[in-house]
Amino acid sequence: MANKEIPYKIYLSECEIPKQWYNVRADMKNKPAPLLNPGTLQPMTAEELSVVFCDELVKQELDNDNRYIDIPEEIQNFYKMYRPSPLVRAYCLEKKLQTPAKIYYKFEGNNTSGSHKLNSAIAQAYYAKKQGLKGVTTETGAGQWGTALSMACSYFDIDCKVYMVKVSYEQKPFRREVMRTYGASVTPSPSMTTEVGKKILSLHPNTTGSLGCAISEAVEVATTTEGYRYVLGSVLNQVLLHQSIIGLETKAALDKYGIKPDIIIGCAGGGSNLGGLISPFMGEKLRGEADYRFIAVEPASCPSFTRGKFAYDFCDTGMVCPLSKMYTLGSGFIPSANHAGGLRYHGMSSTLSQLYADGLMEATSVEQTAVFEAAELFARVEGILPAPESSHAIRVAIDEAVKCKEAGEEKTILFGLTGTGYFDMVAYEKFNNGEMTDYIPTDADLQVGFDGIPKFPGNMV
Amino acid sequence: MANKEIPYKIYLSECEIPKQWYNVRADMKNKPAPLLNPGTLQPMTAEELSVVFCDELVKQELDNDNRYIDIPEEIQNFYKMYRPSPLVRAYCLEKKLQTPAKIYYKFEGNNTSGSHKLNSAIAQAYYAKKQGLKGVTTETGAGQWGTALSMACSYFDIDCKVYMVKVSYEQKPFRREVMRTYGASVTPSPSMTTEVGKKILSLHPNTTGSLGCAISEAVEVATTTEGYRYVLGSVLNQVLLHQSIIGLETKAALDKYGIKPDIIIGCAGGGSNLGGLISPFMGEKLRGEADYRFIAVEPASCPSFTRGKFAYDFCDTGMVCPLSKMYTLGSGFIPSANHAGGLRYHGMSSTLSQLYADGLMEATSVEQTAVFEAAELFARVEGILPAPESSHAIRVAIDEAVKCKEAGEEKTILFGLTGTGYFDMVAYEKFNNGEMTDYIPTDADLQVGFDGIPKFPGNMV
Repeated sequence: MANKEIPYKIYLSECEIPKQWYNVRADMKNKPAPLLNPGTLQPMTAEELSVVFCDELVKQELDNDNRYIDIPEEIQNFYKMYRPSPLVRAYCLEKKLQTPAKIYYKFEGNNTSGSHKLNSAIAQAYYAKKQGLKGVTTETGAGQWGTALSMACSYFDIDCKVYMVKVSYEQKPFRREVMRTYGASVTPSPSMTTEVGKKILSLHPNTTGSLGCAISEAVEVATTTEGYRYVLGSVLNQVLLHQSIIGLETKAALDKYGIKPDIIIGCAGGGSNLGGLISPFMGEKLRGEADYRFIAVEPASCPSFTRGKFAYDFCDTGMVCPLSKMYTLGSGFIPSANHAGGLRYHGMSSTLSQLYADGLMEATSVEQTAVFEAAELFARVEGILPAPESSHAIRVAIDEAVKCKEAGEEKTILFGLTGTGYFDMVAYEKFNNGEMTDYIPTDADLQVGFDGIPKFPGNMV
Repeated sequence: MANKEIPYKIYLSECEIPKQWYNVRADMKNKPAPLLNPGTLQPMTAEELSVVFCDELVKQELDNDNRYIDIPEEIQNFYKMYRPSPLVRAYCLEKKLQTPAKIYYKFEGNNTSGSHKLNSAIAQAYYAKKQGLKGVTTETGAGQWGTALSMACSYFDIDCKVYMVKVSYEQKPFRREVMRTYGASVTPSPSMTTEVGKKILSLHPNTTGSLGCAISEAVEVATTTEGYRYVLGSVLNQVLLHQSIIGLETKAALDKYGIKPDIIIGCAGGGSNLGGLISPFMGEKLRGEADYRFIAVEPASCPSFTRGKFAYDFCDTGMVCPLSKMYTLGSGFIPSANHAGGLRYHGMSSTLSQLYADGLMEATSVEQTAVFEAAELFARVEGILPAPESSHAIRVAIDEAVKCKEAGEEKTILFGLTGTGYFDMVAYEKFNNGEMTDYIPTDADLQVGFDGIPKFPGNMV
């Protein structure tokens, strides 16, 4: 098998799309810490969570035991419309770098939402539909998650209310229009449609909004409107579970050709793409069946893993959500306006946080200009214009491939190419014009966020 | 074979990518009329054409005899980066329409240029490189062709100078930035970098430019700069030849499952996508081996086939290019500003024009609002946000499928989905806001263009 010629793109056939998600928590010795009720500091119960989230998703959120969870047939059918996604051998990049390393990437951008987000959006919309709900609410920043969710809701014919950070709503109208084309209602946040929105607007009439505020509005609408629930596109255990489809397909494709990666690299914002890509490989590592190096890549301007604290913190800036134990910069941390694209989240998936704390995974941070240099190089030789988020992983993959060249090592590098950059041309324009700069927060800058992490006995601040 | 379950997407393997293009002209009894030198009214010679175009492309342009032309290995390798493209069974659309028809579409949008244009751009860039040229020049309107060419030139490391219609340069900066990311120089046209540009600007200092003007500038730079040639993204025979890869892959995929389409539908601007999709099927029809209905779909606002004249006319508004015999609205025809997207060309491929004149193909025109209604429906059920151009084909495919439902006929419909609409959200926004309108030129409106068609003995005006 190992001697077969490797094509540019390894596609699985449709019948090879995984029929179960893989739940890495089942193989973890140290389970991720439970979500806490911020009032009682007790673990959130299924009942408490069900006010906000769909019942089946709550079950998945709390399930640390079942290793495999069946993917309902309706979701499998939707997956067939844009999956399996290709696993690409980066022949042209290897040639350009003159590296003996073999580079592969799993490309999740070939769908209209432009990213991996659709993998979880369709699952969440399905369970909402199955529960007989009328619709779901969510927040979106630049609009990647909102787009994915509006596509999913359109497919299952349920309503989708998106609260979009006002500055993005106005300055990035294109994703807004994609969402509207899919029938979603898109409201600039803060808005007069919620109590929390009215309150914020009365205090700050000229605010351009924030993700934290949009979350608060979306949660309020979900919990006060009959037949609605709130859905979230990253961070949560359930989202990592759905995203395991990325890693499962990758592993199946590699296995076909007898390929074993040495290094697996993913960008990390809330952690859903990284968690999804690495989970089946991490499972092997946890069970002692194989070893891999895993590298999480985050922006130097929002360094949750590399400079954050492992503590219980709010998932949202508005402090209405449960507490999650994670690497965090503090829920009050505001990333620099200088920073392009996503990966701006102050916290991190609690599952990935536990794995990192246990030394099973590495993390590194990269600066913005270096990221766009990697993006441009990649676009030119591999033909795909990558999302700024994905380009963090490209940067480190290139750096590792160059190290291989210097050391004369023939390693196999795998990274996740989460999406395309078609809606990020404002950032590319800045780079093309030589106007992009880097920003690295000082310890004092970070202290502001850390001061907001809740202080209670046992919280490691 | 015919009983195998048809997957959502039929992918060929990489080794099944065609290794030769198919030249439909070889099977035509009535060959397309030759390009004429507007000065002498004699057929353009290879020598005359070689001043403007690369030598090998001139050979392909004039070749009416060779049925198959080898695809050079370097181009095959590039094709492997984004081809084979999927042939999709539109199960969800069929279900939505409750039609007994079986609908397939060949999707060419899964590459960064977002359309089929890359198929010819890479070939043209390759032959320029092989000829030892330094670079190529071209014009672009909204930027689809310019993007594809800049990707191709980046891959072969030759220079790419794009003249972009000024109004698009300013109002659609995103495609401009994609081109710049791929290293192309992008100049708003008219510009002070050419004699023709200076002349136009002195006469019309506030002009926002036109495609005709941009062509004139690009041709001037190509013919006056050492080591440069001009390249064009549609209309020409050579472009149809390269685009035959679309039809060849489609036919190979259908043959695998024993599927024979009854109706084949494509949108038509200059004709490259339509010509590429239908060519191997048309070859069978020309050789008497099979029969198919072919339908060209054009916008009602720019109806070259359905309301144009079959005559010799200039390919460009500036009247510097050779005369081509084609269905034309007159090289002075200016499409309504109301019309969104491409398909604004006044003329049509001379090969397709001959086939249409010989009754081998049908043509129909559709109105803009109906096109966007089809686009929205398609996006919601099939998940892909289509380009406005491609949506013309979707409109007619849906109409034919509905006719099948009414007649209880189980026909097989194939259409070309040429690209994605990610850079066309301004038009979608207009549609979402209910502000889109239709425009159908009156006969008097069209007469303005017809008056400009050259009058000489034998020209059928």
